[in-house]
Amino acid sequence: MTYCVAIKLNAGMVFLSDSRTNAGVDLVNRFRKMTVFEVPGERMITLMTSGNLSISQAVVQELMQQSGSDDNSSLWNVNNMFQAARLVGEAIRTVYAHERAAFKDFGVEFNVSFIVGGQIGSEEMRLFQVYAAGNFIEATDENPYFQIGEAKYGKPIVDRVITPETSLDEAAKCALISMDSTLRSNISVGLPLDLLCYEKSSLAVTKFTQITVDNHYYQMIHRTWGARLREVFGEIEDPTWTRGGEGELDISTSGVARPVFAPRPHGSEVRQLNANTQYLAQGSF
Amino acid sequence: MTYCVAIKLNAGMVFLSDSRTNAGVDLVNRFRKMTVFEVPGERMITLMTSGNLSISQAVVQELMQQSGSDDNSSLWNVNNMFQAARLVGEAIRTVYAHERAAFKDFGVEFNVSFIVGGQIGSEEMRLFQVYAAGNFIEATDENPYFQIGEAKYGKPIVDRVITPETSLDEAAKCALISMDSTLRSNISVGLPLDLLCYEKSSLAVTKFTQITVDNHYYQMIHRTWGARLREVFGEIEDPTWTRGGEGELDISTSGVARPVFAPRPHGSEVRQLNANTQYLAQGSF
Repeated sequence: MTYCVAIKLNAGMVFLSDSRTNAGVDLVNRFRKMTVFEVPGERMITLMTSGNLSISQAVVQELMQQSGSDDNSSLWNVNNMFQAARLVGEAIRTVYAHERAAFKDFGVEFNVSFIVGGQIGSEEMRLFQVYAAGNFIEATDENPYFQIGEAKYGKPIVDRVITPETSLDEAAKCALISMDSTLRSNISVGLPLDLLCYEKSSLAVTKFTQITVDNHYYQMIHRTWGARLREVFGEIEDPTWTRGGEGELDISTSGVARPVFAPRPHGSEVRQLNANTQYLAQGSF
Repeated sequence: MTYCVAIKLNAGMVFLSDSRTNAGVDLVNRFRKMTVFEVPGERMITLMTSGNLSISQAVVQELMQQSGSDDNSSLWNVNNMFQAARLVGEAIRTVYAHERAAFKDFGVEFNVSFIVGGQIGSEEMRLFQVYAAGNFIEATDENPYFQIGEAKYGKPIVDRVITPETSLDEAAKCALISMDSTLRSNISVGLPLDLLCYEKSSLAVTKFTQITVDNHYYQMIHRTWGARLREVFGEIEDPTWTRGGEGELDISTSGVARPVFAPRPHGSEVRQLNANTQYLAQGSF
């Protein structure tokens, strides 16, 4: 599968993608999922893809072939990022029109999604997520990031850390931690990673790296984050249990919390509490 | 939706479930998802459910109605936990047989899964996950936990912290952190929580609490974990970028990492690197 995350900050944008694809567990390959359309000083548009690889490659191909000189006819000459997202959506629809009959015959789901972000000329940076139907949504200050693919494992850290004020380097670190958590919990996501940090208004790729297992910074993240997480975990106090009452309590009248007990057949309808049971009143736990 | 997690340790077992169900976002209700079959001193079996509520309730009802005195005919008289898991599987199949025609007509998916754990007599504690088809798998030392429902958000912390040697209270803390991450990232999971800590060989419920928003310990977890996570995040050094080369580099011959660039139409095939681009050699990032 795939994990890609893009974050839009006041200072710029971070794009991070893995490079594992699989068709079943016995067919695992590497494909890079980030493509950059760049005219230095004029536009920088980054695409990231997840879903069926044959679809996403066809869509990227479709976008690369568009070189028309008419305004808004290709990613090379769209006037703004909204038009760029629309072009990506239209490319998806073009591929869908071509594939739908065969996909239907073979019961293959038309499954693809894109992240499209960047900046064109004097327009603000913008970030979009484009769905398989070609429709799309835009990131806002309230939701400054998008994830596609195996997004859930790596979502909590992004939710906890990222705001529009986060610096580019911090956001890159956050994206890498988010990726590390995903890699640890899901084997369908894998190295190497493409990391692009776009500096606002640079209108060019100024910070990019491909991260393999040998990358020292990623190794440090991988080692340190897990270890520090366990440290913090150890520092948080364990729960202490207080006894709800002494001796035998009638659960039907006690005010303490109790589980849903299945009623015992052929026996007393009212269960007698075990003398040692530590039922807890709310808040005392 | 739902999030339930059960962890089997040397010292006992931890069961944690939320209580939110929803049929669309405009029909959100509370249903407790943990049911305990207990004969103190003889057996303690905990069920947790996720999936279609009508199915899981029907399955629990089916199991509660079984009171036959024949060996292995109900959870009250099964001789071991394997038989208990099998009974749960059979109850699911019974409900399936009853519902399948109508579900098929209405295009409703038969979606349900169970966690079944506990201890009977002198047998070891055992933990199972039962699927909608009634088949099941058992937890082992290598994989000492199961999750059902919205499992992914809360998986990384469990993966990083839990081993069979973890203490019961630590595992309860881990389950609550895992739940907190899930609640934060997914509104279909909600308080109150049922938390049951089963102490090995107690053959009874000795530690249970229901956690609402007022619970001090959960409030502390919620507050502290997020804050400490951000602290640790802040302590990990940000990446530093080193310049791959000075001046204009020909990307076709440079050894440094570069993104996949879409080839520019009507222009030079070989992209000229921006003088300010900080392309990074592997490991220097």
